[in-house]
Amino acid sequence: MGIGIAVAGASGYAGGELLRLIAGHPDLDLVAATARSAAGAPVSAVHPQLTGLDLAFRPTEPAALTGADLVFLALPHGESAALAAALPAATRVVDLGADHRLTDPAAWERYYGGPHAGAWTYGLPELPGQRARIAAADRVAATGCYAAATILALAPLIAAGTVAPDDVVVVAASGTSGAGRAAKPHLLGSEVMGDLTPYKVGAHQHVPEIKQATGATSLSFTPVLAPMPRGILATVTARPARAGADPRAVLADAYADSPLVRVLPAGAWPHTAATLGSAACHLQATLDGDSGRVIVASALDNLGKGAAGQAVQCANLMLGLPETAGLTPFGVAP
Amino acid sequence: MGIGIAVAGASGYAGGELLRLIAGHPDLDLVAATARSAAGAPVSAVHPQLTGLDLAFRPTEPAALTGADLVFLALPHGESAALAAALPAATRVVDLGADHRLTDPAAWERYYGGPHAGAWTYGLPELPGQRARIAAADRVAATGCYAAATILALAPLIAAGTVAPDDVVVVAASGTSGAGRAAKPHLLGSEVMGDLTPYKVGAHQHVPEIKQATGATSLSFTPVLAPMPRGILATVTARPARAGADPRAVLADAYADSPLVRVLPAGAWPHTAATLGSAACHLQATLDGDSGRVIVASALDNLGKGAAGQAVQCANLMLGLPETAGLTPFGVAP
Amino acid sequence: MGIGIAVAGASGYAGGELLRLIAGHPDLDLVAATARSAAGAPVSAVHPQLTGLDLAFRPTEPAALTGADLVFLALPHGESAALAAALPAATRVVDLGADHRLTDPAAWERYYGGPHAGAWTYGLPELPGQRARIAAADRVAATGCYAAATILALAPLIAAGTVAPDDVVVVAASGTSGAGRAAKPHLLGSEVMGDLTPYKVGAHQHVPEIKQATGATSLSFTPVLAPMPRGILATVTARPARAGADPRAVLADAYADSPLVRVLPAGAWPHTAATLGSAACHLQATLDGDSGRVIVASALDNLGKGAAGQAVQCANLMLGLPETAGLTPFGVAP
Amino acid sequence: MGIGIAVAGASGYAGGELLRLIAGHPDLDLVAATARSAAGAPVSAVHPQLTGLDLAFRPTEPAALTGADLVFLALPHGESAALAAALPAATRVVDLGADHRLTDPAAWERYYGGPHAGAWTYGLPELPGQRARIAAADRVAATGCYAAATILALAPLIAAGTVAPDDVVVVAASGTSGAGRAAKPHLLGSEVMGDLTPYKVGAHQHVPEIKQATGATSLSFTPVLAPMPRGILATVTARPARAGADPRAVLADAYADSPLVRVLPAGAWPHTAATLGSAACHLQATLDGDSGRVIVASALDNLGKGAAGQAVQCANLMLGLPETAGLTPFGVAP
Repeated sequence: MGIGIAVAGASGYAGGELLRLIAGHPDLDLVAATARSAAGAPVSAVHPQLTGLDLAFRPTEPAALTGADLVFLALPHGESAALAAALPAATRVVDLGADHRLTDPAAWERYYGGPHAGAWTYGLPELPGQRARIAAADRVAATGCYAAATILALAPLIAAGTVAPDDVVVVAASGTSGAGRAAKPHLLGSEVMGDLTPYKVGAHQHVPEIKQATGATSLSFTPVLAPMPRGILATVTARPARAGADPRAVLADAYADSPLVRVLPAGAWPHTAATLGSAACHLQATLDGDSGRVIVASALDNLGKGAAGQAVQCANLMLGLPETAGLTPFGVAP
Repeated sequence: MGIGIAVAGASGYAGGELLRLIAGHPDLDLVAATARSAAGAPVSAVHPQLTGLDLAFRPTEPAALTGADLVFLALPHGESAALAAALPAATRVVDLGADHRLTDPAAWERYYGGPHAGAWTYGLPELPGQRARIAAADRVAATGCYAAATILALAPLIAAGTVAPDDVVVVAASGTSGAGRAAKPHLLGSEVMGDLTPYKVGAHQHVPEIKQATGATSLSFTPVLAPMPRGILATVTARPARAGADPRAVLADAYADSPLVRVLPAGAWPHTAATLGSAACHLQATLDGDSGRVIVASALDNLGKGAAGQAVQCANLMLGLPETAGLTPFGVAP
Repeated sequence: MGIGIAVAGASGYAGGELLRLIAGHPDLDLVAATARSAAGAPVSAVHPQLTGLDLAFRPTEPAALTGADLVFLALPHGESAALAAALPAATRVVDLGADHRLTDPAAWERYYGGPHAGAWTYGLPELPGQRARIAAADRVAATGCYAAATILALAPLIAAGTVAPDDVVVVAASGTSGAGRAAKPHLLGSEVMGDLTPYKVGAHQHVPEIKQATGATSLSFTPVLAPMPRGILATVTARPARAGADPRAVLADAYADSPLVRVLPAGAWPHTAATLGSAACHLQATLDGDSGRVIVASALDNLGKGAAGQAVQCANLMLGLPETAGLTPFGVAP
Repeated sequence: MGIGIAVAGASGYAGGELLRLIAGHPDLDLVAATARSAAGAPVSAVHPQLTGLDLAFRPTEPAALTGADLVFLALPHGESAALAAALPAATRVVDLGADHRLTDPAAWERYYGGPHAGAWTYGLPELPGQRARIAAADRVAATGCYAAATILALAPLIAAGTVAPDDVVVVAASGTSGAGRAAKPHLLGSEVMGDLTPYKVGAHQHVPEIKQATGATSLSFTPVLAPMPRGILATVTARPARAGADPRAVLADAYADSPLVRVLPAGAWPHTAATLGSAACHLQATLDGDSGRVIVASALDNLGKGAAGQAVQCANLMLGLPETAGLTPFGVAP
């Protein structure tokens, strides 16, 4: 008998990836998966990649979740707080939504709107001291996908004084699964294949999250929709704060004990495809020859280290399991 | 200490997938990976998705392989026989190449050319009686990727007398990794994205293999190159041999005890994407309303059930391990 | 002052392609484009590829169309008949929908449902005698996209007695724009990229149209959704009706005077990408070495020769213009 | 009889696109196309999208080109200078390569190596005064693809004093045809589909070209390879040089008389797919809400406005033809 796990909002893309990871996890038992409009349907009718997983969606209600030792919430932004409040205090919860990420109510209201639900322990284990905090927490707010890619690239460089926090420029491209499963015309395959387009330019909701986690004080963040199902490539640039620092060495040092963040050998640059299906983030950094800026490239699977993989990593810590139990650093490529 | 495994030809796509599966296998230990031109390079320099696997390629020579309990050969057609002959008799071998698949020397010479190396035990466990033969074998020839997709769709229907063997028509589309990693102009991303094209029309080398394994006596097989890295969808049609038979029921019955072949619920058709990274094959069948033909669709990952996944499945049987050890029926999707 | 043209249903994919072709046509003037939900919006808000075309959608009503010399109808199936009936008799009409393609009311009712609107002149100019009929017609029903690819491959071979009409097997894969612009979950980019899946297996609505135009008496037609925005590749096989016939020569002879149907040099097989944005269809044929079947591959752009390009070709004939005015046989590749 | 045109290096991607544009141009006659290894082959054997263009490649030698009124050179970097020197002085030449773009020999040597061939008239007509210079020139050096996307976004803003030239950050993603047609493993479809990866980080050869044309004094330029055949999306950011300026208005004013550069309506962001096959560049600009930076997005077809379309635009000016003769601002989408 493993540890009982429930997933709320399991019909979406992050939810489906959670089910896949839990099904392959040596210590976890999936006891419930909930959905709204798909309630009653077999999981494999919605997620054909999980054919053979004999389970039907239950409605997304507290009763479906209370028997679990740990609940993952993979709900639209703004829906986690109410559901979490209805769960027993002893039930551990990892929220993949944004509701409990921001400590600043004003930032929440500006980017998301509605009342602020309050912050939970932030679910990025690779931040200094965060593994212990997550291990001790009953409620964890997992990092957003763009935020994870950017924070992992940037946080150690600001912390070490390698780059200045006041002129960070990020351009990050994401595969379409990051936009979710709701059927919208601009997300049709006919529209996205062969296409790159920026969106939410000048006001992306991950900006306050990234600033909160990295200490950046000025952040230009431009997201781009890319013609692939999964993957984020963030190109992060900042001005050096002192001469002579080697940004790659700073990153390598920061992540020496983090099995899921890999600083590539010098000269090798991250490929999103190399992280597909994995819980790993790949990083590389250099100094720009013309501008002198530090350039960091960060690649991860938005549903892996950017969502479900990271959430399972947090759950492992909360449950006293090995950090990488049920996770793989290896991608499915080509 | 697990069972020692070596992979010859590990720099190609099937080889890389073997390394990934072995790295995640609970009972196998990777002791050597060999390559020709990449000899000496770190594995992750060639397979960035395996970053963190600390191993370097050795030259593809018997000395690199003899220490292993089981050797996978993932070499170009025509190169397996010589290498296999140089291995100790006690070393189990699974050959992912074509050298030892065909029992008929004339068929070998017609489609591949050169001397026929002789047939090994055929590595498709789902064929009747084949699990036991594989479990007892020291040398196994794994099925080709197109052949696996087609044979799994067709063999039970011919065996049961549901369809006639003398007018089988197959159109099968494959992702580009099936064409290998050699840099050829027509395989450039610029050429293949947005493109479908048939190739080797009228004379594909998988025809004799499919006929041998299914009993088909006339087979029109047209392969198509599809704009995706992985996946095969085979559309197999044949004339019914008797009225009233339900082809889906025949398949469901044939694969009731095969965990990696899934006949989908009636009305659901296979998606290649649902099998990505998995060792599963998905099937569905129906009768065509106009022609009365039986139509079977078969989807698998050409590097999974079509190559490395199937090879590991065979190895599990040969080594007395559970058939699905280290394998997953669940795909990475979307 | 050119010839005044209106497009009804111009917000869809075929409609957008019609606007593009008309905008580049030396003899045609676009006087109106209509849409339903997009009425009032600038054309370029819906079709950003037409930025610079200063026109707004009008509602899809007869009043918006009556000033035109020729009207293209690019409406959902079942909506053309009523609108066409409300247009002046002197207004020429080319219908890209299915409403007026079938001569057999029973076939219409079986595959589309609802009352049969009656057949118009069939808009495939390459069929024997059809150019003259189209040139003399006021109402033309353009061929469906799958049907065009299949009929062009098959009709001359049946007509010449090269292949038998009673055992035709077609597997045809299409890019996603063939499924239209309505936002449906299974057409999301996340779902279709990397995926091949058959659909409507055993009962596709193009079957009666293909049989009507080719004389095939038994037709197994399996459509497949392919991961690309545009393009159809049809693989058509049939049993030879007499020994010794060269199917490629029959096709080359049939299309010697058809500038938009190209039989490729022997040994070269069609690529859908080579037809992107063009009004051309590429063909190749051979005899299968094992089964003896004739195999024909046919590639076209489903929005080009499969829809808008073909419709403009018909309009050119109806208006006494050169058949290829405003059209190109050359594709946009890579 | 039109104006005689020859294309040297016509077997590559830019060369093929030139042939397509010339074939559809009302005033130009293609008299010769040359290639190196493909010399002697029919054009359509190399460019199947040009099936029907009855011409064979001649060797890339001056004799093949001297009969033309204007010659396009689409050769690898470093090969144009020698060939151009062997052409008659009266033959107009447009070089799509880099050999004659840079005025600074030191910059040439740093980024390309080898002796500097000297600068020709720079072929970006939208720069102030440049149309007249091109019209008067016999030798024109067309802009690089990344450079065109970036310069069009940036030059008017620096010229107007809207942004500061000393902290420009560009991240630009390109489809794979920008990397050319040489068969390299990392450009295989299996590698690039589903993948984003940065390359040449910190030292891209377009940096000096962009600085020369825009007056930028510090430029961080990171190119990214994107999973699509064509298209460039450049995200250009710079710090505002004065308060209150509206960067979109500055761009709209600068390009008011440029038919091939389109500043989109406020709020609409460029899509690369909307420019496919066209000679247009789409732009949009805004102020970033957090950092206050100016963000400009620029999309074009790297083979269109980024190469062949731009080159034909220059040729039109040199030959006294309308600037957009044979070109279209409309893309092929979806």
